[in-house]
Amino acid sequence: MKLAFPKAEYVKRVKKVQREMRRKGIDVLIATDPGNMNWLTGYDGWSFYVHQGVIVSLDEEEPIWFGRHMDKSAALLRCYMKDDKLIAYPEEYVQNLDKHPMEWLAKNIFFARGWHDATIATEMDNYYYSAQAHLSLVSNLWKARFVDSQNLVNWARCIKSDKEIEYMKIAGRITSKIHQRILDVARVGIPKSFVVAQIYETAIEGVDGYSGDYPSIVPLLPSGKEASASHITWDNKPFKANEGTFFEVSGCYKRYHCPMSRTLYMGKPSQRFLNAEKALLEAIDAGLEQAKPGNKTSDIAKALDKVMLKYGIDRHGARCGYPIGVSYPPDWGERTFSIRASDDTILKSGMTFHFMPGIWQDDWGIEITESILINDDGCESLCDYPRKLFIK
Amino acid sequence: MKLAFPKAEYVKRVKKVQREMRRKGIDVLIATDPGNMNWLTGYDGWSFYVHQGVIVSLDEEEPIWFGRHMDKSAALLRCYMKDDKLIAYPEEYVQNLDKHPMEWLAKNIFFARGWHDATIATEMDNYYYSAQAHLSLVSNLWKARFVDSQNLVNWARCIKSDKEIEYMKIAGRITSKIHQRILDVARVGIPKSFVVAQIYETAIEGVDGYSGDYPSIVPLLPSGKEASASHITWDNKPFKANEGTFFEVSGCYKRYHCPMSRTLYMGKPSQRFLNAEKALLEAIDAGLEQAKPGNKTSDIAKALDKVMLKYGIDRHGARCGYPIGVSYPPDWGERTFSIRASDDTILKSGMTFHFMPGIWQDDWGIEITESILINDDGCESLCDYPRKLFIK
Repeated sequence: MKLAFPKAEYVKRVKKVQREMRRKGIDVLIATDPGNMNWLTGYDGWSFYVHQGVIVSLDEEEPIWFGRHMDKSAALLRCYMKDDKLIAYPEEYVQNLDKHPMEWLAKNIFFARGWHDATIATEMDNYYYSAQAHLSLVSNLWKARFVDSQNLVNWARCIKSDKEIEYMKIAGRITSKIHQRILDVARVGIPKSFVVAQIYETAIEGVDGYSGDYPSIVPLLPSGKEASASHITWDNKPFKANEGTFFEVSGCYKRYHCPMSRTLYMGKPSQRFLNAEKALLEAIDAGLEQAKPGNKTSDIAKALDKVMLKYGIDRHGARCGYPIGVSYPPDWGERTFSIRASDDTILKSGMTFHFMPGIWQDDWGIEITESILINDDGCESLCDYPRKLFIK
Repeated sequence: MKLAFPKAEYVKRVKKVQREMRRKGIDVLIATDPGNMNWLTGYDGWSFYVHQGVIVSLDEEEPIWFGRHMDKSAALLRCYMKDDKLIAYPEEYVQNLDKHPMEWLAKNIFFARGWHDATIATEMDNYYYSAQAHLSLVSNLWKARFVDSQNLVNWARCIKSDKEIEYMKIAGRITSKIHQRILDVARVGIPKSFVVAQIYETAIEGVDGYSGDYPSIVPLLPSGKEASASHITWDNKPFKANEGTFFEVSGCYKRYHCPMSRTLYMGKPSQRFLNAEKALLEAIDAGLEQAKPGNKTSDIAKALDKVMLKYGIDRHGARCGYPIGVSYPPDWGERTFSIRASDDTILKSGMTFHFMPGIWQDDWGIEITESILINDDGCESLCDYPRKLFIK
């Protein structure tokens, strides 16, 4: 099976992580974020509902994949490392309250390799590193010193390679195709579920021979009053006249995402709605003007908020963007910096983020967003699609 | 917005959990499993990528929903409780390494309600209860006694109500429709991604006016050698002649699942493959004969394994089933009992599980599975679909 990236790229990534580990005094790092596992080794499979991870150490050039017995054959097909770096725990440790995989790991990897008294970094706030996983590991490695990785691997992923950007642009083309399909099929009286079925079909079919992956977040398309509840999923009620619906979707290619939202109003939008569009478009332009190497993430958020306030819209400190790249459910964000007024991350060429300044009011909402690549001169959209409120 | 169940059903469920808490000496329970949140309150939304949960206490009749500020409007639309039981933390606590929602929760809910020295149960091995969430909560509630809920709420969900079974049967009808669609469109030369697009379209469109939800696991359809790696996701390569592909899919209705796998062989299967089918069908029959109230989960597994061994197939202790019901990514299982030889859970009428005795060999695999309801007399399939190896 062909890897998504040349082996040299994985080797380079692992070395980068090892450098950061050395700088922070970390001997061994356990990455349980499936996006981090993929980025470090190529591993890709729907197996993150059981305990698994990738272990990077300063002692060994290549990382170790660990997972359940049944998934080792997937690791053999997907990882750049060979069999000797793939370690599987027995099936009886799967979802068994009496036997935790981390006990097995402590004995069979950490003690076996003399890492029982190392400084070990774990991804403390990750979905796939549970409270029990940590307690089991700590109590079985009583001589080790545990530290939070503070998203070390996620941070290492911030600046994308050319190949990663290529994949994100393919995802972006799928995103555009999805929005075009929405415009084609959504109209008053059509059930939402029908449009969602079309979104999925388009997303998976992909574009020009590049077939799509499942996105890490399902399509969100709340209308009218529900648009204030931006994470509610669809039902089968028909679209109504004189309501706005925002469509938050992302194409996904080789697990890389390129999310983008557009709002579609069916009927004649009120002046308030049109004003919101005007405010958003002007605020996005103001934000993007600040999106260039050397500036800070907060510069973007402040420029946006300033325009929004001019139009009387207070976003109450809600962040207006987050980094994107390779990822798995439940989130397509990379969980490092945020685009918000209190975040002073320095922007660098090769960084990618979803700039998403929605307006969510009590009884309506509007989203017009862009996935952005910081380049040497400023920034560019990863998706080529008209930026406006659509009216039908 | 209409709740999925009458308010009385939610009230009954909460009371059941409170009884169990009392029995175990638990004052306050925090449910972070989105399936448990849904079952207890009706809450449903794609917001589980941030910290959220439902708190059940012995002091208050109704549970408390907590989540980020932005998601409170979803809770207002989806939960059976009123506004005063919905507590939102400020947006600045979202994915911010310096501010953890559990700090806020400790102060604004636990101290505010006098639960700072209570016995508090948390879902220790849940995806959505991270190591950091636990450490933050423990360090901010230094007088409290923390215990593992040991999946108390999941166990309370084991026996399904009539309405839940109704939903699972609708999900089962969607599952059957998906398999029918697979049979219609899959053939040698067709890219897998095309079939996946059709699976999604069918799953979302649903059946007879019941539109489908997103399933908690994406369609899995590995072929030939890859079928040994059962959690690998699809690509766009065409189906090949003389290979078997198993399709592990589930319809989903109001978040209730009814998974079922079937294997499709394109060409003329080898005698080994046909023998595997024979072994599986006989083993499934033997297992299902043991699936009745009063028997144990291990009785099913042992009956199955006995037949498998007769055919020379050693499943190496892999479990052959797990409970199903309401759930969210990354898993459609309920994570309580397992159908395995070492699990002695007593079967009761109303229990539902996915009986999935796959055979995964080094270079091929076969899955024929059933979603099962234990009834007063024995058991029944939740899905009505021919149980056999399909050949095309």
